[in-house]
Amino acid sequence: MTYVAPLKDLLFNIEHLAGLDELARLDGFEDAGIETAAAVLEECARFNEEVIAPLNASGDREPATLVDGVVKTSPGMRQAFRQYAEAGWLGVQHPPEYGGQGLPKVIGAACSEMVNSANLSFALCALLSDGAIAALAAVGSEAMRQTYLHKLVSGQWTGTMNLTEPQAGSDLSLVRTRAERQQDGTYKLFGTKIFITYGDHDLTENIVHLMLARVAGAPEGIKGISMFMVPKVLVQADGSLGERNDVRAASLEHKLGIKASPTAVMQYGDHGGAAGYLIGEENRGLEYMFQMMNSARFAVGVQGVAIAERAYQQAVAYASERVQGRPVDGSAAGSVAIIRHPDVRRMLMEMRARIEGCRAMLQVAAAADDQACRHPDAGVRQAQHAFYEFLLPLIKGYCTEMGVQVTSLNIQVHGGMGFIEETGAAQYYRDARILPIYEGTTAIQANDLVGRKTIRDGGATARAIAAQIEQTEAQLAQRDGAAAASVRAGLAHSRQAFLDVVEYVVREGTQAPNAVYAGSVPYLTLAGELVAGWLLARALLVADDYLARGEDKAFMEAKVATARFFAEHVLAQAGAHRHRILHGADSVLAIAPELF
Amino acid sequence: MTYVAPLKDLLFNIEHLAGLDELARLDGFEDAGIETAAAVLEECARFNEEVIAPLNASGDREPATLVDGVVKTSPGMRQAFRQYAEAGWLGVQHPPEYGGQGLPKVIGAACSEMVNSANLSFALCALLSDGAIAALAAVGSEAMRQTYLHKLVSGQWTGTMNLTEPQAGSDLSLVRTRAERQQDGTYKLFGTKIFITYGDHDLTENIVHLMLARVAGAPEGIKGISMFMVPKVLVQADGSLGERNDVRAASLEHKLGIKASPTAVMQYGDHGGAAGYLIGEENRGLEYMFQMMNSARFAVGVQGVAIAERAYQQAVAYASERVQGRPVDGSAAGSVAIIRHPDVRRMLMEMRARIEGCRAMLQVAAAADDQACRHPDAGVRQAQHAFYEFLLPLIKGYCTEMGVQVTSLNIQVHGGMGFIEETGAAQYYRDARILPIYEGTTAIQANDLVGRKTIRDGGATARAIAAQIEQTEAQLAQRDGAAAASVRAGLAHSRQAFLDVVEYVVREGTQAPNAVYAGSVPYLTLAGELVAGWLLARALLVADDYLARGEDKAFMEAKVATARFFAEHVLAQAGAHRHRILHGADSVLAIAPELF
Repeated sequence: MTYVAPLKDLLFNIEHLAGLDELARLDGFEDAGIETAAAVLEECARFNEEVIAPLNASGDREPATLVDGVVKTSPGMRQAFRQYAEAGWLGVQHPPEYGGQGLPKVIGAACSEMVNSANLSFALCALLSDGAIAALAAVGSEAMRQTYLHKLVSGQWTGTMNLTEPQAGSDLSLVRTRAERQQDGTYKLFGTKIFITYGDHDLTENIVHLMLARVAGAPEGIKGISMFMVPKVLVQADGSLGERNDVRAASLEHKLGIKASPTAVMQYGDHGGAAGYLIGEENRGLEYMFQMMNSARFAVGVQGVAIAERAYQQAVAYASERVQGRPVDGSAAGSVAIIRHPDVRRMLMEMRARIEGCRAMLQVAAAADDQACRHPDAGVRQAQHAFYEFLLPLIKGYCTEMGVQVTSLNIQVHGGMGFIEETGAAQYYRDARILPIYEGTTAIQANDLVGRKTIRDGGATARAIAAQIEQTEAQLAQRDGAAAASVRAGLAHSRQAFLDVVEYVVREGTQAPNAVYAGSVPYLTLAGELVAGWLLARALLVADDYLARGEDKAFMEAKVATARFFAEHVLAQAGAHRHRILHGADSVLAIAPELF
Repeated sequence: MTYVAPLKDLLFNIEHLAGLDELARLDGFEDAGIETAAAVLEECARFNEEVIAPLNASGDREPATLVDGVVKTSPGMRQAFRQYAEAGWLGVQHPPEYGGQGLPKVIGAACSEMVNSANLSFALCALLSDGAIAALAAVGSEAMRQTYLHKLVSGQWTGTMNLTEPQAGSDLSLVRTRAERQQDGTYKLFGTKIFITYGDHDLTENIVHLMLARVAGAPEGIKGISMFMVPKVLVQADGSLGERNDVRAASLEHKLGIKASPTAVMQYGDHGGAAGYLIGEENRGLEYMFQMMNSARFAVGVQGVAIAERAYQQAVAYASERVQGRPVDGSAAGSVAIIRHPDVRRMLMEMRARIEGCRAMLQVAAAADDQACRHPDAGVRQAQHAFYEFLLPLIKGYCTEMGVQVTSLNIQVHGGMGFIEETGAAQYYRDARILPIYEGTTAIQANDLVGRKTIRDGGATARAIAAQIEQTEAQLAQRDGAAAASVRAGLAHSRQAFLDVVEYVVREGTQAPNAVYAGSVPYLTLAGELVAGWLLARALLVADDYLARGEDKAFMEAKVATARFFAEHVLAQAGAHRHRILHGADSVLAIAPELF
C-alpha cells in the first residue's frame, strides 16, 4: 500500500487557516512564506513516500529484537534513519544555532504528519528525541547544550524520555528511581524505567536519556522529582565518546502495534550506578517534564491524524477497486465498485471529515504556538498561548481517539480482507491503539481540560473561543447555499452546548468534582468536535470564495461537502454530550467500586 | 486472566425478560423450567471456566498451522473439543431425535455466550457446525439426515459453511465454483472457496462441508446457486469412512485475531472433482443458505456480548487493583485504586450497560424465536417471528460493534499495560474486530433492516415494537424515583426519534434509496440502542419490585443504575442519529466517487 502525502490539503490549511503570511512577519520566520512551505513539503513528501513508507509493513513483520543486551532495529531502519538525518529532517523546527532549520511549527507539523503517515514506528524515534532537545534547550546548562544539542538535532545521537516505572504511570508522584549526588556535582542513578520508546537501538552511536528520579533526601511526591541526563555512552571533555554508562535495555515489550519501535525496560545502576547530570535545578523535574511533554502531546495528536490519513487512503483505494453488489438505486444491472454504495461513502466521509477537521486543528494550534513564542506584543503572545494551551488536550485526546475510529473504519471498508494481516489495514488499527494512551491517556487530557484549562481561568479562554466561533457563524450567515446554512446551524447548536457545559464545569468543578470529572471525556469530545467543526467552517468560507472566482472547483467543492458532513454528522452529537455531562453523573457514580 | 460466567445476570434475563416460564409451557419444552436452566448453566459455566478458558491465550500465541496439507490446531484444542462433545455441549439446542438435548434457544444462547467468552476461536467450530446441522435438518434428504446428523450433533464430525470466493463476499451472485452432475445423481465440485472457518482441522475424523456452487447451465446471478454437501472423507453405505475426497485446505490466513481458529482457502476438485451431494433442489441454494446464515448471525451477535463480557471482567479486575493517582474530591491523601476515578467508572459503566443491554436483547430475541417455532397459535407464531426477524440485524450489527467498542475500552482502562500482548486485553480487541464483518457486515445488516425488515411491511413491525416500548414507559411513570423518571424520558426521546426515522425510511425508501441507505447504519444503531435501552428499562421494573420487597439489594440496585446509565448516556444519542438520517444524506453523497 503506497502513501501519497496530502500536500494540497496541508498547504490549504497552512495558507488559509494557519495564516502563514502573518507568521512570516515574525522575527526569524522572514523566509517562511508559502513558497518555502511548498518547497519543503514537496521534498518532505517525496522522501517519506519513497524512503520511509516502504519500511512500514516490513518493520511490523520483523520487529526490533534484543540480543545479548543490544537492540537490533528492523531491516532497513538504520539506513533510512541515516538518510533522514542527513537530509536534515530532524531539524526542521529546531533553532538554527544548533543546526536546525528554524521553520515555524506549522511547517514542522506538516512534515511530522507525513513521516508519521509513512511509518509511525520510525517517526517515534525523532518524536521522543525532539522532547529531549526541547528540554535541554530550555533548561540545560550552556555546557550541556554545546555538547549535546548539535548532535541531537543532526541525528548523530538521539534522545529519549524516561518517566514511567511499574508503579508510576499517569501518577508520577510514585517515581522511585533514585539519584545519589557525587562529590564532583554529577549523580549516580539507580532503578528501573519501563515503556521506554527507543530506549536502546542501533540507529546511532549514542543515546541521551532524559529521566526523572528522586535525589536522596528529596521531599515525597511530585515535589521531590528531578530531571537528569544520562548518556548511554559517556561523553569526554573533547566531545568524543568514552566508556559505556551503567544503563541497559533489560527487555523489549511484545506489543499490539508500533512493533518496529523498540519499547524497552531500562535498568539504571546495576553495576555501581549510571552517571547522570542534573538538568536545571533539583526537585523541579516535573515542571521541566511538562515542557517536553507538551511538545510530545502535540506530536502524538499529529500521529492520530497521520495514521488516519494513511488508513483513509487505503480505504479509498480499496473501495474504488473492489467490485461487489448492485447499487440500491438500480442504476447498474451488475455489481459495481463498493464506493458507489451509500454506506461505504458514509464511512469514507466519516474518515475524511474527521481527518480534515483534526488536521485543521493541528495547523491552527501550531500557528498559535508560533505566535505565542514570537509575536512582538505581549498581549497577543499571552492570548495565543492560552488558546494553544486550551487546544493541546483536544489535540492529544480527540485527534488520537479519532485515529482509532478511522483505522477501524478502514478495516470495515475492507470487510474480510481487512482482518487479514497481509492487507495492511490491521497494522494501522493496531498501531493507532497506543495513541490515546501514551504521553497521557485521554482521561488525563480531559482532566487537564477541566482543571487547568477551564476551571483555572473561570472559563475565559473557552468563552473567547466560543466568541470567535460566533463570528464565523455570522460570516456563514452572509453566504448562500444549503451547506453554509447547515454548517451554521450545526455550529450554533454545538457552541451553545459547549457554553452550557463550560458554565457547569466552572460552577461545579470545585464543589462537585466527582460529578464534573465523570463528564470530563464527553466534555473533551464536545470541545474537540466543536473546534474541528469550526475550523472546517472557516475552510468552507475560503472554499466558497475560490468557487465564486471559479477556481479549483473539485477540491473546493469537496471542502464544502466535508465541512457540511462534519456539521450534520458530528456536530449533531453536541446535544447528547451536553446531556451526558449535565445530567449523567449520578448514574456514572451510582455503583460502589466494590460492587462491580 | 480468569473468566467467571455471569450466571446471575443470565438467569435474571432468562427468568424475567425472556419469560422462561411461558416457554416451558410450549410443546417439547416441558422440562425446561428455571431449575433446569440454572442446573445447565451452572454446569456449562464450570466446564467453560475450567476447561475452555485456559486455552484462549495459548491458542492466540500458537495458532493453528498447515503442514503438508493438514491443519494442526493449537495445543490442547483437540482434547478440549473431545471433552466438550462428550459432555453434550454441542447438542444443547439440537433436536433429541439426532441426539441433542432439545432445550430452548434462550438456554442455548446463554451456553453459547459462556463458551464464546471462554474462547472465541474454540467456539467458532461449533458455531459453523450448528449452521450445517440446521441446514441439513431443514432441507437435507432423509438419508442424509440419518447418515450425518447424529455424528454432527455428537461432535464425532463437524460441519462448515463454504460461501465466500475471492470475487464473491457480500455479493454471492458472483459465486463461480461449479458443480457437474454425474450419472448417479451425485455431483463433482470444482473451484476455490476462501475464508473457510475450520475448513480443515484435526479435532475430528471427518468434516462435512456445506457449500454454494453453480451447476453447469444454471442461470446467472443468485438464481443459479445450489447448495451441496461435500464430506472431507467419503462416507460408505454402512456409515463407515472410505476414501479421502478431492477437497483440501490450500493455505491458512494470517489474521488480526481469532488465531486459534484456522481460516482456510479450500480447493475443490484439483484431482478430478470433489464428490458432492445436492441439498434440497438445484438453484435454491441461496434460500437455504439464508436459513443457516440466520442462525449464524444470531450466534455472532452472541459472540459480541461474550467477548465484551470477558473484556469487562478484566477491566474491573485491573481497575480494582491498579493504584494510581489521588481522588479528584480529595477524599484520600495518597494514590487510590483507579476504579475510584470518575472517568474509569464511566468507562466501566459504558461497558457494563452496553453488555447488559445487548444480553437482554439476545435473550428476548431467543425467546421470540422459541415462541415463533412452537407456539400453538399461528398468529402468535407470526408476530413473534416478525419480532425476531426485526431484531436479528440489530443483534448481528449492533451487538458486534458493541463488542469492538467494549474491548477497546478495556485497553483504555489498562493504559500502557493494555497495549502489551501478555496482558491479554489486546487479544480481545483483536479477536472482536472480525465480529462486525463475518456473516454479513454491519452495512449488510443495516440494508436488511431497511429493506426486508422495515420497508417490506411498511414499518408495521417497527411500530409494534414502539408501541410495546410506550407501554413500558407508562409502567415507568407509575414508579417513584429519579432513575425511573430518567429512563422514561430517555426512552420517550429515543422512541420518538425511531418513529420519525421509520416513517422516513418507509416513505422515501423506494423513491430516494441512496439517501435512505446513506443513513442505514445510523438507523441500525438507533434501533439497537432503543431496544437495548427498553429491555434494560423492563429490567429496572423487575429490579424495582425486588427492592420493594427488600430482596437482593446489591444486584438489583446495580440493575437500576445500569438502566439509568444507558438511558442518560446512550439513549441520549437518539436525536443525533435522527438528525444524521433525516438531514445528512446530501453530504454523504456530495463528493463523486472519482473525486475521493
